[in-house]
Amino acid sequence: MISLKNRVYIRDLFEHGIVGNEYVIAGWVDTVRVHGKLVFIVVRDRSGRIQVVAKKNLSEEAWRTAKTLTPESVIAVRGVLVESKAALGGREIQAREIEVYSKAEPLPIDIHDHAKTVLAKRLDWRFLDLRNPRNQTIFLVEAEMAKAAREWFISNSFVEIFTSKIVGAATEGGAEVFSIVYFDKPAFLAQSPQLYKQMGVIAGFERVYEIGPAFRAEPHHTTRHLTEYTSVDLEMGFIDSYEDVMDAVENVVRSMVEHGISAYRERVEEYFPNAIHSLPKKIPRITIREAYRLLQSAGVHVEWGEDLSSEAERKLGEIVEKEYGSPIVFVTEYPWNARPFYTMKKPEEPDWTLSFDLLFRGLEIATGGQREHRYDVLRRQIEEKGLNPRNFEWYLNMFRYGAPPHGGAGIGLERVVMQALGLGNIREARLLPRDPERLTP
Amino acid sequence: MISLKNRVYIRDLFEHGIVGNEYVIAGWVDTVRVHGKLVFIVVRDRSGRIQVVAKKNLSEEAWRTAKTLTPESVIAVRGVLVESKAALGGREIQAREIEVYSKAEPLPIDIHDHAKTVLAKRLDWRFLDLRNPRNQTIFLVEAEMAKAAREWFISNSFVEIFTSKIVGAATEGGAEVFSIVYFDKPAFLAQSPQLYKQMGVIAGFERVYEIGPAFRAEPHHTTRHLTEYTSVDLEMGFIDSYEDVMDAVENVVRSMVEHGISAYRERVEEYFPNAIHSLPKKIPRITIREAYRLLQSAGVHVEWGEDLSSEAERKLGEIVEKEYGSPIVFVTEYPWNARPFYTMKKPEEPDWTLSFDLLFRGLEIATGGQREHRYDVLRRQIEEKGLNPRNFEWYLNMFRYGAPPHGGAGIGLERVVMQALGLGNIREARLLPRDPERLTP
Repeated sequence: MISLKNRVYIRDLFEHGIVGNEYVIAGWVDTVRVHGKLVFIVVRDRSGRIQVVAKKNLSEEAWRTAKTLTPESVIAVRGVLVESKAALGGREIQAREIEVYSKAEPLPIDIHDHAKTVLAKRLDWRFLDLRNPRNQTIFLVEAEMAKAAREWFISNSFVEIFTSKIVGAATEGGAEVFSIVYFDKPAFLAQSPQLYKQMGVIAGFERVYEIGPAFRAEPHHTTRHLTEYTSVDLEMGFIDSYEDVMDAVENVVRSMVEHGISAYRERVEEYFPNAIHSLPKKIPRITIREAYRLLQSAGVHVEWGEDLSSEAERKLGEIVEKEYGSPIVFVTEYPWNARPFYTMKKPEEPDWTLSFDLLFRGLEIATGGQREHRYDVLRRQIEEKGLNPRNFEWYLNMFRYGAPPHGGAGIGLERVVMQALGLGNIREARLLPRDPERLTP
Repeated sequence: MISLKNRVYIRDLFEHGIVGNEYVIAGWVDTVRVHGKLVFIVVRDRSGRIQVVAKKNLSEEAWRTAKTLTPESVIAVRGVLVESKAALGGREIQAREIEVYSKAEPLPIDIHDHAKTVLAKRLDWRFLDLRNPRNQTIFLVEAEMAKAAREWFISNSFVEIFTSKIVGAATEGGAEVFSIVYFDKPAFLAQSPQLYKQMGVIAGFERVYEIGPAFRAEPHHTTRHLTEYTSVDLEMGFIDSYEDVMDAVENVVRSMVEHGISAYRERVEEYFPNAIHSLPKKIPRITIREAYRLLQSAGVHVEWGEDLSSEAERKLGEIVEKEYGSPIVFVTEYPWNARPFYTMKKPEEPDWTLSFDLLFRGLEIATGGQREHRYDVLRRQIEEKGLNPRNFEWYLNMFRYGAPPHGGAGIGLERVVMQALGLGNIREARLLPRDPERLTP
């Protein structure tokens, strides 16, 4: 039995390993080749790969074990680090002992070339698909982006909250909500922590954030929708205007993209030549009316006073890239009829709102704005949207006992990853994607 | 209009404020007293409180505004910082301008003394309940504990994953699972990320963690159960034994408790005299057989080979406190009949398992162990538990293509907070608790 107590990561052997010393490594068999009295195994752990050579005359037992190995079997190796001109990286391990933890059967998909397998089948075999370093990189970047967002929030006095995902009423309205069988009561899965993060501000935390799941019963089959995604949510009180919220979103998203990519620069450059490594110092901000005009000038049909279609967003991304030299743009002042009841209207022009979307390479990655904090106005807006104020009683109550001016935004983590790396399908950026057809693994 | 651009936190006025300078503060009206030509307002923001005085002869407009203020109204104040022997902390603000954002109606609960209101009503008015600094402290500590856990994970090479909470099959078995209406398919809310975090290890990330919601359809009405809670999950590959997992859990939990409390030491000392500030250098580890014996010697009835009841756990906590001087203890080697199918059995004594619970002040706060990674054994264990291997096909498949020895644990965030602060009810440690009766706010 090989003890894993002193196991070293393979990458460290190349960087700090001492030739002639004995080491323990462990990982997956990347490839295995038998040449008579020699067996060459490439072992892969999450840090890298190294060649292991098992020689009959060095350790007959290790050599016998090596001969029976199959690709993707899991092993530990105790052996001596030596220089080797033939081996990748110039070093290899001469095996003294090999322990097999798990022997792999022939694989159902090609894990070395992800392009050989259609995405649906890759997702069916996700645990194998992720052994491909390209695919693994996506999730390393994603984890790094979440970390960067949190670090920004913490250093800007935001308090992390954990809100309930089981809710008694659909927060964002509409049909796109999943129902739960909750004992004998009707209940739903939260479409966003919207009302709760506002509660966090009003309760006195002033600035709150949450990175957690959000659920949308969208029946769409597109390359950019999921029924469950990770939402990076923030809400901040005592703002002067929704520009303050955009400043925060701009800083969070820049931090996510730049830290996320730079932490794995080499791997990103190798596997995602199309990736965006940095964002402009100042993200352009255009009103939706300017957006209509830009689109109309480019011959795209848009309805004045309506939301932008995803096709219009894509096209706008191209125009902004050309006109402003930026892959990312804030579109502001969306029409009142396209925003939810809690959005603050523009005081002088109440058909428009103090709201924004952030488009990255032509795809909405964030949405936000200032919230209406005046009880009477908020109540009127609920009625204006054809909703019943009675169904929002606890929410409305929050504005009767002292609510500061506030605003916030929700950022779709997988969409940021997708657009930063230039992926073709959001399912690639979700460990276990869910859509109307897919519930497994 | 007062610009909030240069708003300062109240605490900073006491620590770095320059007497004679003008400042902008904003927050809630804690108290207000009218004395003829003087109005005294205590303003509270999330950092602290300061007295504001509005003098008729200094600014008649500010004085008029001040007279109309009600407790919990939200205001901004522009004024000069002055020394004042009568004011708390020896400093106050002389108001030049007061802006009212939101006027509060008379409050439905007493927010200065939480003990005056029963918990159910406090939760109904959670956004007011949290304005009490004691109650707010609970969630500041909770956020700090999550941060401490993440920092430990990151510095120990764990990769953060975001797994799906919508699942196609109940992972932990049993009836305690919520059903979802998922288009035309049966679906459930994840009871834990158990199978997915194992997938993360087997997929090649080797060490993964997730801090996210977990759902249990427990019909219990106790002070320690919630239907939705925050689970701190970890899973690690290439372990020698489940002792490695306990080492990890021990370090994470110690980091959570010690950083969580020390970040708010003053407030914790003021409001939670019963809190535990640090954990022993080495958490004692006793087998469940030793636990049976300790309990039996203390006259507590336990069935040899059965799980511990919550009453037995509570009692064991007391005994361990007395015998070992520790408020926290690992109980190991739970009987096979009390653990799920994926638990590894003790090789020499297969009635017992390589598993553990962590009891903190007599309450289970974490559970974990080594997982069975050998396909044939795992398949047999599924059958032994009376489950159908067909329902676990994708899960079983993971063990056919190379799975390292691995183990992990789940830690209940709210339970750690509850036990560290010495709270009487887990609902106090959850922003928006859910139980069979409560779905709101």
